[in-house]
Amino acid sequence: MSALRFAAIGLNHDHIYGQVNVMLRAGAELVAFHAVEDDLAAVFAGRFPQARRVANKMEILEDSSIALIVSAAVSSERASLAIEVMRHGKDVMLDKPGMVTLDQLAEVRRVQVETKRIVSILYSEHFETASTVKAGELVKAGAIGKVIHTTGLGPHRLRKPTRPEWFFDRKRYGGIITDIASHQCEQFLFFADSLEAEILSATVSNRANPDTPGLQDYGDFHLRTPDVTGYVRVDWFTPDGLSTWGDGRLFIVGTEGTIELRKYIDVAGRPGTDHLFLTDRKGMQHIDCSGVELPYGRQLAADIRDRTETAMGQDHCFKAMELALKAQVLAEATALNSVQR
Amino acid sequence: MSALRFAAIGLNHDHIYGQVNVMLRAGAELVAFHAVEDDLAAVFAGRFPQARRVANKMEILEDSSIALIVSAAVSSERASLAIEVMRHGKDVMLDKPGMVTLDQLAEVRRVQVETKRIVSILYSEHFETASTVKAGELVKAGAIGKVIHTTGLGPHRLRKPTRPEWFFDRKRYGGIITDIASHQCEQFLFFADSLEAEILSATVSNRANPDTPGLQDYGDFHLRTPDVTGYVRVDWFTPDGLSTWGDGRLFIVGTEGTIELRKYIDVAGRPGTDHLFLTDRKGMQHIDCSGVELPYGRQLAADIRDRTETAMGQDHCFKAMELALKAQVLAEATALNSVQR
Repeated sequence: MSALRFAAIGLNHDHIYGQVNVMLRAGAELVAFHAVEDDLAAVFAGRFPQARRVANKMEILEDSSIALIVSAAVSSERASLAIEVMRHGKDVMLDKPGMVTLDQLAEVRRVQVETKRIVSILYSEHFETASTVKAGELVKAGAIGKVIHTTGLGPHRLRKPTRPEWFFDRKRYGGIITDIASHQCEQFLFFADSLEAEILSATVSNRANPDTPGLQDYGDFHLRTPDVTGYVRVDWFTPDGLSTWGDGRLFIVGTEGTIELRKYIDVAGRPGTDHLFLTDRKGMQHIDCSGVELPYGRQLAADIRDRTETAMGQDHCFKAMELALKAQVLAEATALNSVQR
Repeated sequence: MSALRFAAIGLNHDHIYGQVNVMLRAGAELVAFHAVEDDLAAVFAGRFPQARRVANKMEILEDSSIALIVSAAVSSERASLAIEVMRHGKDVMLDKPGMVTLDQLAEVRRVQVETKRIVSILYSEHFETASTVKAGELVKAGAIGKVIHTTGLGPHRLRKPTRPEWFFDRKRYGGIITDIASHQCEQFLFFADSLEAEILSATVSNRANPDTPGLQDYGDFHLRTPDVTGYVRVDWFTPDGLSTWGDGRLFIVGTEGTIELRKYIDVAGRPGTDHLFLTDRKGMQHIDCSGVELPYGRQLAADIRDRTETAMGQDHCFKAMELALKAQVLAEATALNSVQR
């Protein structure tokens, strides 16, 4: 069986490196890439000399030997690219967020149904995080009974001087909930094991960055399925003294136990990443998840070959973005009465 | 100066022991108590032999040498007792929740203004918890810049067979948000340094206790002041394997740092209680707060003597209950569309 051949179009977020690597680890072959920005292309070419840079993305889209396109284009441009990729008979893996408006989502959904191509979004805070994968296994095995709640806390470091201009333009990055919290929407649906959820309340604001008024530096929302409640907070307030980019946490409450993830750091505690704390009927355990296999890339490669949905269900993928987009809209609709300044 | 003399009326929740001890530690003298329940009275008399049991609470209310009444009566009966105490010219310290309806709150507020007596509620998760007191000091000192968010997670162990009948009667205990989350409302206002807040969304439900339909075993809500957002989750789902009654957490996000409290346990981690994790511009610190002074009792005794408001502002006390009661009402108003079953 020949290796899956794939290409990258759009390198505007560093997440492209995670997207490429996840497929390389799955045995796929990176054959080409396209970016209009010479500086971004140079760095990418240095990391992946096996990939040919093409001046016109049509060279990639019209190459029938390429099965998958990965893209970390500017967020607002991902939906139209995904549609173009599908219309050329290829599957697509986007950086999150996959789209920045509900209209974009509707159009991508429509074309996906029509073309039967795979639209996947690499939610790295789930699929590239060993403790989250492990938590999924534990929950599925019944370790904490029936899940009734999740709280996801997602502070991120701003690193303001390093960010490109589009990062501060609401229309292009999509708002903080769409952008960062789409990760959390996906995890909420995953742990709730549901495709139905509603947003109960949501806020966004700019609390401490008046020089970049287009940046929402804070967002949160309360949501639920018929059986599971959730809360999500995302922000750009990782303190300078934290030794990594964010103290990402996830709390999962079940009827018979709880799980806490300290995904990227155990603050002033144990070294390393991917700390999972399981408390159940029998006691409390710290589980080091650093050795857990991350199956997303392997599964997506198989899905592309077999036309299955093992890496992430197509409806699940779209529903997660729908939740994030709806929470973003609700937060902004109520922002006049809110803390936005 | 003679010691402050105080008495207890209503011993229906074990919190009465904390309430008495906090005043004894402040040098006050427990002189009498009243309870209609012989079993509760016997245990109390064994712990505090210095206190005379009186058959009629009027013996206490009409004793002009007694300045303060402490009460952990059934929650729904606390407001009327507080009013009676104030009408007898005494101050009162209630177990939380101080009242179970907005009407009770309005009446207590009215009589407090009229009589100028002190109505205090001993929020043990703040005033009797060294890490919370320490966090207050750090925030006031500017350790994390301007506070922009708090998340309070308050799981509690149900210990179902040990609970009295009224504990499962919505009208008498007031609902899970009123009951447990009034603690969290008080802390939210305290860390937000505000007396204005609104409830954005709230849910309550009975997820896993169909045999006691009056018990709400889960509640949560999203709230904000003009400047600070908050989220609170309370539940009766502490797993059997946890070595204490609940894994209480509080996260405080500021513009320049964060604080996390692991109040009662550091799950599968450091021994003891009252762990505070401060991350600021300079780095990350674990602060053991077990030696921090708890000033509430000392301050309340001084307030009773000096007619000041150092232990807890009167408006703050009432506003915290107002928030809890409003969140409870909102949660129940939307429960038809909710996870309640």
